[in-house]
Amino acid sequence: MKKLDGKEVSAKIQEQVKAEIESLKEKTGRVPGLTVVIVGDDPASKIYVRSKDKMAAKLGINSRVIRLDAEVSRQELIGKIKELNEDDEVDGVLVQLPLPGKFDTWDILDHLDPGKDADSFLPAGLGMILLNRSRVFPCTPAGILKILEYYEIDVTGMDVVVVGRSFIVGKPIAAMLTNLHATVTVCHTRTKDLPAVVRRADMVVAAVGKAGIIGPDMVKEGAVLIDVGVNRLNKKEEVERYCTERQQEKFVKKGYGICGDIHKDAYAKSSYYTPVPGGVGLMTVAMLMHNTLQLFKKRVKT
Amino acid sequence: MKKLDGKEVSAKIQEQVKAEIESLKEKTGRVPGLTVVIVGDDPASKIYVRSKDKMAAKLGINSRVIRLDAEVSRQELIGKIKELNEDDEVDGVLVQLPLPGKFDTWDILDHLDPGKDADSFLPAGLGMILLNRSRVFPCTPAGILKILEYYEIDVTGMDVVVVGRSFIVGKPIAAMLTNLHATVTVCHTRTKDLPAVVRRADMVVAAVGKAGIIGPDMVKEGAVLIDVGVNRLNKKEEVERYCTERQQEKFVKKGYGICGDIHKDAYAKSSYYTPVPGGVGLMTVAMLMHNTLQLFKKRVKT
Repeated sequence: MKKLDGKEVSAKIQEQVKAEIESLKEKTGRVPGLTVVIVGDDPASKIYVRSKDKMAAKLGINSRVIRLDAEVSRQELIGKIKELNEDDEVDGVLVQLPLPGKFDTWDILDHLDPGKDADSFLPAGLGMILLNRSRVFPCTPAGILKILEYYEIDVTGMDVVVVGRSFIVGKPIAAMLTNLHATVTVCHTRTKDLPAVVRRADMVVAAVGKAGIIGPDMVKEGAVLIDVGVNRLNKKEEVERYCTERQQEKFVKKGYGICGDIHKDAYAKSSYYTPVPGGVGLMTVAMLMHNTLQLFKKRVKT
Repeated sequence: MKKLDGKEVSAKIQEQVKAEIESLKEKTGRVPGLTVVIVGDDPASKIYVRSKDKMAAKLGINSRVIRLDAEVSRQELIGKIKELNEDDEVDGVLVQLPLPGKFDTWDILDHLDPGKDADSFLPAGLGMILLNRSRVFPCTPAGILKILEYYEIDVTGMDVVVVGRSFIVGKPIAAMLTNLHATVTVCHTRTKDLPAVVRRADMVVAAVGKAGIIGPDMVKEGAVLIDVGVNRLNKKEEVERYCTERQQEKFVKKGYGICGDIHKDAYAKSSYYTPVPGGVGLMTVAMLMHNTLQLFKKRVKT
């Protein structure tokens, strides 16, 4: 078993993005612009937005955060998005989710120009995946492909089982791996016999958000394990059951430990696995920067 | 085994569409408008366009066909599409494919207003499927769902194998069936062991265009067989091997016989099957009318 190091791949992507931005700046006199819109003050969202802003600035992206009060009206929020659509300095826009409960997410997001959709969550962005015409992918599945590429794992002909059918991970990664010539099965809560299906997989992509749901008995010897789950546990017995030793130490100090959807005891059977934390999760923000660069390149037509 | 009769379901859809158009006409004073654009004179395309035009007229749709010479320039063709985008009488537009070879299909189609995309082939239409927000689906997969609905076949928890990964059938139907709670696997030319995968399926959707590629030995007892293939055979030994008796008689008279991707000898093992011809193929044009009605309803906001 070999660990697929998200930190290493993320650093590589960041380095490439930074270098390309520098060279494009020389050529065009411009740098990509990313604007993140955050509404209200959800503490987790604030942390995510800060890390995005920080990485963007580090890579030479013209980064801006627009903070709106939770009391903002639908009209004002849509107005702000339309302003960004028109703003020539802005290449990518990301509306941090979740929005406060009073908003209908799509009623808001559908006003964003699909050409500035840095998350690639809008219909046009997702549809390009089915057409195999994408330049930009949703950040988490995009990060998975970069990890596979970095470690030269060719999925052609592989039987891949994706567990979870969200539009953020499950359904797009399934179509993306199909385009890359894998034979992909998508499982979910209604799947009759999940262990039997997962046991056949040459690669498992787990994206459900349930601690250790993919147990060692469900994994074929030599399978590639890609874990998208990030589960925060704060009960001692759960932490001992699902978390690595390092996360168990963290629990002692901080009162919680992190684990993935794939049980740590399954790693030993794998050929490759992404750890949690330290795997796919570290790719997401880097891929957002990568996407912003692609949107910029399309807009300035390089 | 029970035959799923595409003619019967298509007639039902047509009847519903016609009735709804009549009632909307009373309410709004308007009827849906469908414009089909055909470039050049490919004989098969001309036949398809004629049958679409005929059915639209029959159902009370304001149908128009724009015939353009194969010599038309890119600019003129795009200009025509933009005109249709602006035309308030036009709710749905379909550009008949294939376009003459000198055109880049997407370079042309991307100019169509996604709100008038009657085929639902544009990125925005396909992406709505992954988001599970669709009102309009590509015609062939939409027809498959209507057949299942008509015969009350519930796919929840079924293991479905889709053979073929086109953006017209394979990838959208896979996502649509996933949304309906089936566990879906998409197979294609790079699949390692197609017979083994298909043999596990509670339902097979075959959409590859190869006569009888799904043989009786590949089908599980009691499986539902959905055949999207329409293969025209004109060699005697092939016709005898793959075509039903009726099509063999046709061969004697007309020199060709039609068969599907699923071998006729597999029907006996199925619980339900769609014949070829007479199955899924008959749904497509009816679903185009259904889509035009949906686009109209969205535009007049009923």
